[in-house]
Amino acid sequence: MELISIDDVRAAADDIAGTVVRTPLLPAPWDGELWLKPESLQPVGSFKLRGATHAVARLDPAARSRGVVTHSSGNHGQALAYAARAAGVACTVVVPQGAPPVKVDRIRALGAEVRLVPPARRLAEAERIAADTGAALVPPFDDPRIIAGQGTIGLEIVEDLPDVDVLLVPVGGGGLSSGIATAVKALRPSAAVIGVEPLLAADARESLAAGEVVVWDVERTYRTSADGLRTHLSALTLAHLRDRLDGIVTVTEEEILAAMGRLVREARLVVEPSAAVAVAARLFHRDELPPGRTVAVVTGGNVDPALLASVLD
Amino acid sequence: MELISIDDVRAAADDIAGTVVRTPLLPAPWDGELWLKPESLQPVGSFKLRGATHAVARLDPAARSRGVVTHSSGNHGQALAYAARAAGVACTVVVPQGAPPVKVDRIRALGAEVRLVPPARRLAEAERIAADTGAALVPPFDDPRIIAGQGTIGLEIVEDLPDVDVLLVPVGGGGLSSGIATAVKALRPSAAVIGVEPLLAADARESLAAGEVVVWDVERTYRTSADGLRTHLSALTLAHLRDRLDGIVTVTEEEILAAMGRLVREARLVVEPSAAVAVAARLFHRDELPPGRTVAVVTGGNVDPALLASVLD
Repeated sequence: MELISIDDVRAAADDIAGTVVRTPLLPAPWDGELWLKPESLQPVGSFKLRGATHAVARLDPAARSRGVVTHSSGNHGQALAYAARAAGVACTVVVPQGAPPVKVDRIRALGAEVRLVPPARRLAEAERIAADTGAALVPPFDDPRIIAGQGTIGLEIVEDLPDVDVLLVPVGGGGLSSGIATAVKALRPSAAVIGVEPLLAADARESLAAGEVVVWDVERTYRTSADGLRTHLSALTLAHLRDRLDGIVTVTEEEILAAMGRLVREARLVVEPSAAVAVAARLFHRDELPPGRTVAVVTGGNVDPALLASVLD
Repeated sequence: MELISIDDVRAAADDIAGTVVRTPLLPAPWDGELWLKPESLQPVGSFKLRGATHAVARLDPAARSRGVVTHSSGNHGQALAYAARAAGVACTVVVPQGAPPVKVDRIRALGAEVRLVPPARRLAEAERIAADTGAALVPPFDDPRIIAGQGTIGLEIVEDLPDVDVLLVPVGGGGLSSGIATAVKALRPSAAVIGVEPLLAADARESLAAGEVVVWDVERTYRTSADGLRTHLSALTLAHLRDRLDGIVTVTEEEILAAMGRLVREARLVVEPSAAVAVAARLFHRDELPPGRTVAVVTGGNVDPALLASVLD
């Protein structure tokens, strides 16, 4: 299987400038060797804007005129809607019936067309729209353009902290970690890139151990509060992670909420549970991590206000 | 009275690089012509780190060895402690008895010595320490070095958004607004720099109208939730604002809290009330402001968790 290269990530960096925010590294107030990469500050509130913007930028003129389509009601759906609008490209987002109305409203507010379908028909409907209209299907992670776009985070981290030793990266579908590991292994080979996932959705660790994609039932993964990390790997992301990831650790739900509280109260960042897992690993599993100058990727800030209020106690 | 110049601000920018975070401009999700400058992301959670870092950097070697002293229990005290530690300079902070223990603990955790004194004796005690030990007194705003340091925010805004039309800047003691106005009037003379203060602490508006520093009683100003903006101007900051500020607007307490909620829920920033006044002006007093591409300076994020939770409802 062909993996993406550092040149792909560099090309993505050129594409996303102007649409994506160049986020700074923030020193963590409680840890002299920890920096935070706050992707929660992106428009639409997550790193997903990077991959989506790059994917839209890579459409040829004919494809641009036919638009894009995806089937995520979460951060990727909003990111693609934003990226498409910024590029003047039509966008359709297939959303499962029962998704929170606030998410549907946000996607519509970004100018995308929303198609509500039964949850099990999401992918099929997106593929049907792509076949019928010629729209380009832009998946949330299983795509070289998406992986290269997310990898720009690794590029920026090494630019800002050239002697970084450890990067802690949340793992859901594996697009983010695949992209960051690609950039970092090319630019700073001595740095370790460590994936972090919830214990309740530790399918990536199991997949890496098995050497093949292991899928956990939704009945298992829905129990984690880190809803952005319930997804399983694809063959493409597994291939990147087998080649380029240095290890993977898991964190509990209690640790995730404690890390969220730390980030809100002490780093003054509004974060969603999925975004707190890397900090949770540094706080509670330091003995499983390499030592040294560490960056935790804080992936997004789309959190339910009631949950956010609960970590302020 | 001698005012600071753009060269002073440029010199400050050189001094603070490496200690102060280069904050990005964030597009406000609800307003296509509004950007946020999130100084809440600075170490110690406020823009005060800029002026404090510059003031410490400008000490000559003999002064460095004697250390610095100030008399603020708030953001400036923490900022000076952080800046002094980063530069390897001793720091004493005079704190009024009765200050929240969490603030005292934070200053101590940053390595500064804390002297608790009756509130009315703060300034006298700081001056006594300076006289006895030779430590340099670094005031929170009434100082050309502090004004130049805060002005680096204006430099960065014009760099990132060269065609900015309007800057909205909170006004307390006037150091921040004096510095930003100095930078912006030199680099982008057509842009308007507008001060914003709480209606319950509108002493700067009154001072500008009177042409002299007007001091409001503590009994009046303590009523605003924007505790960072209760201070009055000095002769030095008034002179800068008379020369360089284009106008001043006031916002109510309800407007401040509504803007805080917007910033937390939609921009994913943890902010204190003082930091929300510029956004409140754009949200609720647009008819009093010039039109066009606008930047609101979001000054800090040191907020009581209970107050933060209250704006999440």
